Amino acid sequence: MSSGNKTKVIAEEGKQELFVIREFEADREEVYQAFSDPDILIQFFAPAGAIMSYTARDFRTGGHYRYAHTDYNGNIVCTFKGIFHEMKAPELIIQTAELEGFPGLENALLESMIFEELPGNRCRLIIHDICFSVETRDAMLQSGMESGLIMIFNQLDDLLKK
Amino acid sequence: MSSGNKTKVIAEEGKQELFVIREFEADREEVYQAFSDPDILIQFFAPAGAIMSYTARDFRTGGHYRYAHTDYNGNIVCTFKGIFHEMKAPELIIQTAELEGFPGLENALLESMIFEELPGNRCRLIIHDICFSVETRDAMLQSGMESGLIMIFNQLDDLLKK
Repeated sequence: MSSGNKTKVIAEEGKQELFVIREFEADREEVYQAFSDPDILIQFFAPAGAIMSYTARDFRTGGHYRYAHTDYNGNIVCTFKGIFHEMKAPELIIQTAELEGFPGLENALLESMIFEELPGNRCRLIIHDICFSVETRDAMLQSGMESGLIMIFNQLDDLLKK
Repeated sequence: MSSGNKTKVIAEEGKQELFVIREFEADREEVYQAFSDPDILIQFFAPAGAIMSYTARDFRTGGHYRYAHTDYNGNIVCTFKGIFHEMKAPELIIQTAELEGFPGLENALLESMIFEELPGNRCRLIIHDICFSVETRDAMLQSGMESGLIMIFNQLDDLLKK
């Protein structure tokens, strides 16, 4: 079951950035580990009905990743790839991300994830995405990103309880 | 001697991006090569009076780089590092860049370099930088970025003539 913590998406009109803020009932070492260990990430980082699988999973500063979401029939729904500009446990990840299959560069983005320690062994995750254009950012928002993230974070809640 | 081609910097007020546009008297394969081969880049990518040296130079998609500019006394003036999200010859480079020694993530940026073919074996380079904040972008502009780039591009002009 979910923690009940809300996912907050902040996207000011006309800007090429967005913020996602979410708190977790676990200390930041655990939350950082969930996002930086590919064996854990794969357990929650796909919306329900999709299966995540890696073709590259070199999770370290200077490393890169590539993964697909497939449906239960094995059809690839989408493929993401990127590189880790910096992984600094337990506080910070800076990475690129790109949804493959779109032409040109407009689809690549730079993302920071800050893991803030909160009192009572809790953690606040702040994701900051910057895009090459306002249009790309708006397309992300309209793609169902928020509902996907809510699902993913709820799945992480369940995992953190174990 | 320089080609006389002008360096154009476009930075709209209040935005977290900037564009740099410059034409070269060489075909785009040559210009792309100059920016994607570390042995060539090192010959022009430092302002006069500085010497460039690498501590990492893995120039390929998924690779990373790190270099310093030192003065003639061997003192390090600044160190830059980043990763190559994509290198697609002869048309596109997407990379991160960070000036080391500043705290936090605000200093990392995502950069695309598009090499456009022009008639007469000429090339237009379009650099697009996106930053985590308007403040970072403005600080870059105020750091003498434009005069540094003008010098660097003029040095590349000389190199392309050889």
